Amino acid sequence: MKEQKKEKMSLILFSGDLDKALAAFHLSTGATTMGMDSCIFFTFWGINLLRKKENKVAVKKNFIDKLFGSMMPKGPTDLKLSKMNMGGLGTKMMKKIMKDKDQVSLDTLMKTATDAGVKFIACTSSMEMMGICKEELIENIELGSVATYLKESIDADIRLFI
Amino acid sequence: MKEQKKEKMSLILFSGDLDKALAAFHLSTGATTMGMDSCIFFTFWGINLLRKKENKVAVKKNFIDKLFGSMMPKGPTDLKLSKMNMGGLGTKMMKKIMKDKDQVSLDTLMKTATDAGVKFIACTSSMEMMGICKEELIENIELGSVATYLKESIDADIRLFI
Amino acid sequence: MKEQKKEKMSLILFSGDLDKALAAFHLSTGATTMGMDSCIFFTFWGINLLRKKENKVAVKKNFIDKLFGSMMPKGPTDLKLSKMNMGGLGTKMMKKIMKDKDQVSLDTLMKTATDAGVKFIACTSSMEMMGICKEELIENIELGSVATYLKESIDADIRLFI
Repeated sequence: MKEQKKEKMSLILFSGDLDKALAAFHLSTGATTMGMDSCIFFTFWGINLLRKKENKVAVKKNFIDKLFGSMMPKGPTDLKLSKMNMGGLGTKMMKKIMKDKDQVSLDTLMKTATDAGVKFIACTSSMEMMGICKEELIENIELGSVATYLKESIDADIRLFI
Repeated sequence: MKEQKKEKMSLILFSGDLDKALAAFHLSTGATTMGMDSCIFFTFWGINLLRKKENKVAVKKNFIDKLFGSMMPKGPTDLKLSKMNMGGLGTKMMKKIMKDKDQVSLDTLMKTATDAGVKFIACTSSMEMMGICKEELIENIELGSVATYLKESIDADIRLFI
Repeated sequence: MKEQKKEKMSLILFSGDLDKALAAFHLSTGATTMGMDSCIFFTFWGINLLRKKENKVAVKKNFIDKLFGSMMPKGPTDLKLSKMNMGGLGTKMMKKIMKDKDQVSLDTLMKTATDAGVKFIACTSSMEMMGICKEELIENIELGSVATYLKESIDADIRLFI
């Protein structure tokens, strides 16, 4: 039975760092290229990758949620390196290097992943903790709990926490 | 045969950060709620979560072990965020947010996990490296080596390194 | 059939931190000790572990690759702790503690891993991104892409992202 079913990769993207997000998307799109199913469960800082740059829908928030939200990155272009960020300089340098070498940016990688059918699931308890609501996230995201993750992952072949 | 045995989650908690510890305990207790077996192998900075706040038993240590021990957190309430800690301010803010939203604190989550039967294993070689002895850890902890982890994990269904 | 084949551990070492690298090599050599196959896929900051201290072969690089390369560690002895580095002091202290307690250094652990047959694979797209070429890496390294990792890992029993 195992043989008839598609192989599957299930990632938790906990990190909101540029370098780790790159790793997660390279792995996910790599998996779909090889014919595998693939999903990413975005939790904690990883939720920031799913935030829209500009939100047209007004969202009511308390002061502390607003403050916290304003300090966190919005979407893939805001992310920084986990190491050697050096006040943003290292991140800029890395982005320039990637561009010069025709390497795909995180922004584009995310779109490629969506087009390739990688399923994006946002962790609802992380969203609540960070005061982020569904309206602030990009389209085509599923919402889910830890139970959702476990159900998605129990029959997966490769599972990683990034 | 596989069908008759309970499914199992085996986590390595390497990190001693508040946010990553929250993720580990949410996953473990989530797994037990779904009827899975669950164990956490605490290694390196993760060992700090198992340290008692106050130790009544006198423990003889050399100077450097004492110094190192005094600089590391003792138990779940001492942990800091891996990002946006801002000299402790971000961590305080996050704890306030969690409280305001009736989210379970790490302290309580740890107790829930123990009550739910999540097995806690402390890595002995990490304990040795950090100069921490069994008497300084909370009760109901098993001690184990890398071999213990591998034996626990080889038949697990979900394994993550956090 | 599963029973006749050797069990296998497949790690991604993304991190270039001393503590995480120690964990990766303890796990890998532990796995081989128990008769398992074992491989490590070095990616992003993890590539730095494979860099030779001194490179006799002249390698032509552009300015930014040279600069970036000069800021990153070269080999296991250059690595720092992910926490409590304190400008290098914490890392020195940890190395002293490990030596005093006769714990194996990362340098020696890496050699033990190679001798025990742990397969080292360097991620080519990370190498390109960081401007590091094959000549700068230690001997007996395989080069591979995400597809290589996936092929190595799909039939592995334990897979972790470190």
